[in-house]
Amino acid sequence: MNKKIVIIGGTACGPKSAARARRCDQQAQITIIEQEAELSVATCGLPYYVSGVIESRLELVQRGPDFFKEVMDIDVLTRTRAVAINRKARRVEILNLAKNRTATIEYDKLVLATGSTPLVPDWKGKELKGIFTLSRIEEAQAIRQLVSPRKIDKAVIIGAGLIGLEMAEALVSHGVEVSLVEALDWVLPALFDFEVAAYLAKHLREKGVKLLFGQSVTGFEGDEKGWLSKVVTENTELEADLALLAIGVKPNTGLAEDAGLSIGSTGGIAVNTYLQTSDPDIYAGGDCVENVHLVTGQKILAPLGSTANKHGRVIGTNVTGGNESFPGVVGTSIAKVFDYNVGRVGLSQSQAQQAGYEVITALVPGYEHATYYPNGKDIMVKLVAEKANGRLLGGQVVGPGDTAKRIDVLATALTFGASVDDLANTDLAYAPPYNSALDPLHNAANVIRNKQVGLARALTPLEVAEKIKKNGAFIFLDVRSPAEWEAFRIKAPQTKLLPLRELRTRLDELPRDAEIVIVCHSSVRAYQAQRILDGAGFTNVKFIDGSIAAWPYELSFQRPAAAAE
Amino acid sequence: MNKKIVIIGGTACGPKSAARARRCDQQAQITIIEQEAELSVATCGLPYYVSGVIESRLELVQRGPDFFKEVMDIDVLTRTRAVAINRKARRVEILNLAKNRTATIEYDKLVLATGSTPLVPDWKGKELKGIFTLSRIEEAQAIRQLVSPRKIDKAVIIGAGLIGLEMAEALVSHGVEVSLVEALDWVLPALFDFEVAAYLAKHLREKGVKLLFGQSVTGFEGDEKGWLSKVVTENTELEADLALLAIGVKPNTGLAEDAGLSIGSTGGIAVNTYLQTSDPDIYAGGDCVENVHLVTGQKILAPLGSTANKHGRVIGTNVTGGNESFPGVVGTSIAKVFDYNVGRVGLSQSQAQQAGYEVITALVPGYEHATYYPNGKDIMVKLVAEKANGRLLGGQVVGPGDTAKRIDVLATALTFGASVDDLANTDLAYAPPYNSALDPLHNAANVIRNKQVGLARALTPLEVAEKIKKNGAFIFLDVRSPAEWEAFRIKAPQTKLLPLRELRTRLDELPRDAEIVIVCHSSVRAYQAQRILDGAGFTNVKFIDGSIAAWPYELSFQRPAAAAE
Repeated sequence: MNKKIVIIGGTACGPKSAARARRCDQQAQITIIEQEAELSVATCGLPYYVSGVIESRLELVQRGPDFFKEVMDIDVLTRTRAVAINRKARRVEILNLAKNRTATIEYDKLVLATGSTPLVPDWKGKELKGIFTLSRIEEAQAIRQLVSPRKIDKAVIIGAGLIGLEMAEALVSHGVEVSLVEALDWVLPALFDFEVAAYLAKHLREKGVKLLFGQSVTGFEGDEKGWLSKVVTENTELEADLALLAIGVKPNTGLAEDAGLSIGSTGGIAVNTYLQTSDPDIYAGGDCVENVHLVTGQKILAPLGSTANKHGRVIGTNVTGGNESFPGVVGTSIAKVFDYNVGRVGLSQSQAQQAGYEVITALVPGYEHATYYPNGKDIMVKLVAEKANGRLLGGQVVGPGDTAKRIDVLATALTFGASVDDLANTDLAYAPPYNSALDPLHNAANVIRNKQVGLARALTPLEVAEKIKKNGAFIFLDVRSPAEWEAFRIKAPQTKLLPLRELRTRLDELPRDAEIVIVCHSSVRAYQAQRILDGAGFTNVKFIDGSIAAWPYELSFQRPAAAAE
Repeated sequence: MNKKIVIIGGTACGPKSAARARRCDQQAQITIIEQEAELSVATCGLPYYVSGVIESRLELVQRGPDFFKEVMDIDVLTRTRAVAINRKARRVEILNLAKNRTATIEYDKLVLATGSTPLVPDWKGKELKGIFTLSRIEEAQAIRQLVSPRKIDKAVIIGAGLIGLEMAEALVSHGVEVSLVEALDWVLPALFDFEVAAYLAKHLREKGVKLLFGQSVTGFEGDEKGWLSKVVTENTELEADLALLAIGVKPNTGLAEDAGLSIGSTGGIAVNTYLQTSDPDIYAGGDCVENVHLVTGQKILAPLGSTANKHGRVIGTNVTGGNESFPGVVGTSIAKVFDYNVGRVGLSQSQAQQAGYEVITALVPGYEHATYYPNGKDIMVKLVAEKANGRLLGGQVVGPGDTAKRIDVLATALTFGASVDDLANTDLAYAPPYNSALDPLHNAANVIRNKQVGLARALTPLEVAEKIKKNGAFIFLDVRSPAEWEAFRIKAPQTKLLPLRELRTRLDELPRDAEIVIVCHSSVRAYQAQRILDGAGFTNVKFIDGSIAAWPYELSFQRPAAAAE
């Protein structure tokens, strides 16, 4: 008798499981149950549909039910909701939403690909018109109708996560005035450390996005027609005729919970390495399950279309008698945010420290390719490694240049437990249009190695800012050229200009036992200067990580796009 | 007493060794000996200087001798040649080329960074004017003066390696008619397999480059002024007023050999993992040494600026008392060739087979990012894995899209001995502007996995071409839409159109025991069709690797830039 495979959920993991199951088993009876009218909607593309970069919603609907039937011999029940699972009888109770009619469907193997739902706190006024989340194509369409052509003026985005930032760009592109409210202290707080987030925040402000940190929304106010007029936070009120709630998603586990399946401590459905739930005949994948983080070994939620698709293949194999494992994720995320490419992987410094690691970090500005090859763009790399053994724990790469490549290298390296020594010697592709002879990742790994052995000593931008603010007694030694110094600099009363090329001959101008913190454009010269002073017997010399290129605060003059190092 | 470190060679490894040695040891006495007038010339940029993409030669000269002295306290002797090494006395005999005066210089640690020299066979007429190699800035300048403004019409490039192809682009950009003569049978024969090279060759022909394979040059003919007029090959004569010899380089080992140091079987200076030669006080790095290939464990030559810089850091550490290792390379190469990005890593299929591996491969066309996100460009991926265990052996990625990212991922994966299973599940960065939910690398790894377990069965384009040519008795089943079929197809008398969506209902049109080879645009549908026919009891069905998108021969109609899959 042919195996009956029932799949609940039709976005990413579900259709992928079904297609893979069909390719593995031509006889199985395969059914997908989906409550929406459409299947295989590319929800990751919704912000680009709002902006108009993707013109037609048809481009986001990748395959219709008829395709599944004709090509795959897969039955698709759209506008149908799975209401309950009867594990004993191996049946799913379903509700046809169009006809409001219930039925049951039998399974030998069941797949839960139920996805996730945007979080909507119980804020006063949340039912007002003009308040949206973004997980369904209909929501994107409703927002697009408000902004193209533009019928509204002011939007508030609540939550400075990836979707919040992608939507900030989409709305600004239509001339909407955008404010971004984040309860924590910087953009992308779950993904980035402060100094990298601050580098991105500068760019957001340049693009006209108003940023409000450290304040939670408390409610909404509306006009007489029931349309949103204000977003109220702990500190202020913001006029708004559109609000987007983008504070995260929660896994859809209701069906699984009701059926008595194990739920993990993260809130996702618990699965083993074969993506099997606590019932061996029920598999689960995509946004609704928890994943293993390969760096920490801990369980995490990783709701991403890429992971969902990988899950789908594993599940399709296993429900048809195969035996495939899904190893886990390394916490990779990327987004385009205006002109910046914003990526991260592994653990941030704060995550690593919270997880109990003693860390060593590097903050290294660089170019995407050879400095002498034209049109190079900046990137900034932060690496986090374990202090004891140099094992890589994570990386953050942000800037107008090619960050995706570096993130993918780091994702691969983290998968294999690479150390900074491994990374520093990895044979990455080099030709002037693609890279420098040493990649910014190589340089960042080498900075950590130099710190490990005590050759390099650095303070973070935050530590230096604190020192300046406190009017601390130190020399803030700028070793750039006078021309660079004139163009822009970090404002500090402790500043002294002494160009690197003159340093060896003017050592006497510096007191040997003073605390000296050295700055240049990207800390290449500052490190060199630190070593010169070390060699000359100075006892308390450091440089600032990333120098001016990574300085997350204002400069006293305008910072140009690129400066020679 | 301060350590005396002498470094012979001032391009990449030499200056890097010197700078690193200085940062590790502020007291050492460090001297660089360089026979050219300039130091730290970015020779990888020379083709771009010829094209004019890099305008001024000053951009290629990264640092002058005065910089080394003032900032690093490193003595630089330019226009000075190291003539002999007296290992017993620890002395190098040097010749000041400007003053034609000899001297000796003592060392405690000596570094050989003597580089490589373009091969120039003893061909008749090789002394004619207008015949060049490209390793020095003066050569690039001489060529540029001939083409900008253009004073010559026809160039012949001898050797279709990376420099040959980069220079083809540079010369075509000035309106020069370029012929490329390669003794072997396809472009980049040391790096790519035929079908990937053929995909690139199509692009070169579109750009007007004339390709001549399988013929060696035998000599040159000149005019009465001693200027080149013809390049003569085994098969033909080519009119030419410029010829570029780009058939490879040989490591400069003369000094080392004369001093009795061990030379490896590759012809490079033998070094251990600390980059120490057979004399423990003499280190060597850069183009003149051999490297360990991390995939095979064998020694190879890997003359690249990136490797030379990594060597430099290791040597600089070790000559000042450190203990750092250089693990080796994975054979990474990349080049921009007109509008294509051309990269490879590890072993090609033919190299792997020559090394005794039984291999399994995938040839997978893809897009650089989500198909629905605009302006995606094509890439083509070939992966080579070990049949027994799925270990990755190498990859080739070519096309107008982002190939560098995929090459760097593969380079990292190969460094850690990754398998196709590992690659298929690697958590690469996904957002629509950067990738599809599954990267082309994931897809290629999955094709190999499908082949491993017998789900997928494919013939190579070459095998199919052979079958068509021999008028073999098989059905060449095209499962694309009628519209795609009308637009272009692979010409073959065995062709039959049967769109995938009609396949299940029209199975009776196909004989069950015939040999059937299925084709579509990129083999996604062809694989699906193969599984449908397998399930229906057909006994001899395969698809063609990469389908029309990877077909290296002409199509019967013009192939558009992108077609829907």
